[in-house]
Amino acid sequence: MRQNIFDNENFFNGYRNLRRRDTCYNNLLEQPAMEEMLPDLKDKSVLDIGCGYGYNCLDFIKRGANKAVGIDISEKMLAVAKKESSHPNIEYRRMDMSEISSLNMKFDLVYSSLAFHYAENFKKLTEDIFNLLNDCGVLLYSQEHPIMTAPIDEDMGHFNLDENGNKISYTFSDYNRSGLRKVHWLGEEVTKYHRPMGEILTSVAQSGFIITDVKEPLPKPWALEKLPSIVKEYIKPNFLIIKAVKNKS
Amino acid sequence: MRQNIFDNENFFNGYRNLRRRDTCYNNLLEQPAMEEMLPDLKDKSVLDIGCGYGYNCLDFIKRGANKAVGIDISEKMLAVAKKESSHPNIEYRRMDMSEISSLNMKFDLVYSSLAFHYAENFKKLTEDIFNLLNDCGVLLYSQEHPIMTAPIDEDMGHFNLDENGNKISYTFSDYNRSGLRKVHWLGEEVTKYHRPMGEILTSVAQSGFIITDVKEPLPKPWALEKLPSIVKEYIKPNFLIIKAVKNKS
Repeated sequence: MRQNIFDNENFFNGYRNLRRRDTCYNNLLEQPAMEEMLPDLKDKSVLDIGCGYGYNCLDFIKRGANKAVGIDISEKMLAVAKKESSHPNIEYRRMDMSEISSLNMKFDLVYSSLAFHYAENFKKLTEDIFNLLNDCGVLLYSQEHPIMTAPIDEDMGHFNLDENGNKISYTFSDYNRSGLRKVHWLGEEVTKYHRPMGEILTSVAQSGFIITDVKEPLPKPWALEKLPSIVKEYIKPNFLIIKAVKNKS
Repeated sequence: MRQNIFDNENFFNGYRNLRRRDTCYNNLLEQPAMEEMLPDLKDKSVLDIGCGYGYNCLDFIKRGANKAVGIDISEKMLAVAKKESSHPNIEYRRMDMSEISSLNMKFDLVYSSLAFHYAENFKKLTEDIFNLLNDCGVLLYSQEHPIMTAPIDEDMGHFNLDENGNKISYTFSDYNRSGLRKVHWLGEEVTKYHRPMGEILTSVAQSGFIITDVKEPLPKPWALEKLPSIVKEYIKPNFLIIKAVKNKS
């Protein structure tokens, strides 16, 4: 059965509190990098896979998009989206990302923030996205970095400290063992799928995309000021962002 | 000054002994993967950057290539190549990879095995290669994986053992600090350049290439039989292989 952890009351509330903190890594590291990589959206249509609270859909409209469709598997997320991020040109649908091939629409941008590490079949997902895009359409998505999702025993992934308690290195395992991972987060067991970099990038490429950017975002000076400990992100990557365009030929 | 470590007598001899062992990682892991990814070479021309002993140049000719140019900065390497891997359709030249733009030729394949982590200016290198390729020409190259080149203090990169002495995880640092690395290998200090995955792939893409394959090779069953301890390669990546084609547009 598909995971719908965000409709778990405890997880939903825990995640909402987390995202509200302005020192949250999404706000300091991932979202600023994604924003910089957005294409021009004037009069464009956008699909947001795992739209959550709908904040990005609303932002796409503000940037000139003429249509945004946000899909999410969580009813609770969509209830927030419809309340806090509604707009006549935004449509929210409850749908799992494995079902997007049933959407009878075409888009200029398919966007997704931190959802694809929950996808069981990544190759099918990238093929479905390719088919939903107009010519020259763009895929822009972020996920947890494979170094972070790698360990099968989650205790194997951790920073190491020097004698003064400073983080100096990072330990991981099972990088080349693609597949299911169960991790504990916000008091719940969460199911993810680890895939090495090569598997991810080859899937995107072989679905027909031209990869234009691969980013492992680093904190900007303002983020380092807000959360000095984020300097440890120089030790290891945290997020992976891929931008690719639909090959016209 | 450019590094020419392979003309150091001790290093040259140490490396030659290493490569002669059939349990060498190049022979077990990197070369078999590169071979599988080679395009059809019938009547094609090939440039081999860092050709070493010339074994690959000779192999390209055996596969039907009508011309192979091997360049290397090491006189000692080229002396072996001319002695052991000579052929009327192979030309060996002493040249550093930073100088390839001076080659007044075009190629259908630019190949390089484990040399590009010695390149100081990777963006220029990928641009020069793009300019040397015919339309639809292919770049196929391998390098040490960024996880392996990352640590500034080389002691920071190491396996960790369980109580029975089995390798169970891998530790690294400085992944997001791009730049010079000095490591000790075969009794000498060797200069390399670390670049994170994102920087490498974005350089290739933005030089005009269409990336088709990104591979972090794993040992085949026959390699696991020959060197059972190579199973530890499931813990962390060792090599990175990129295949890309020249965008016609």
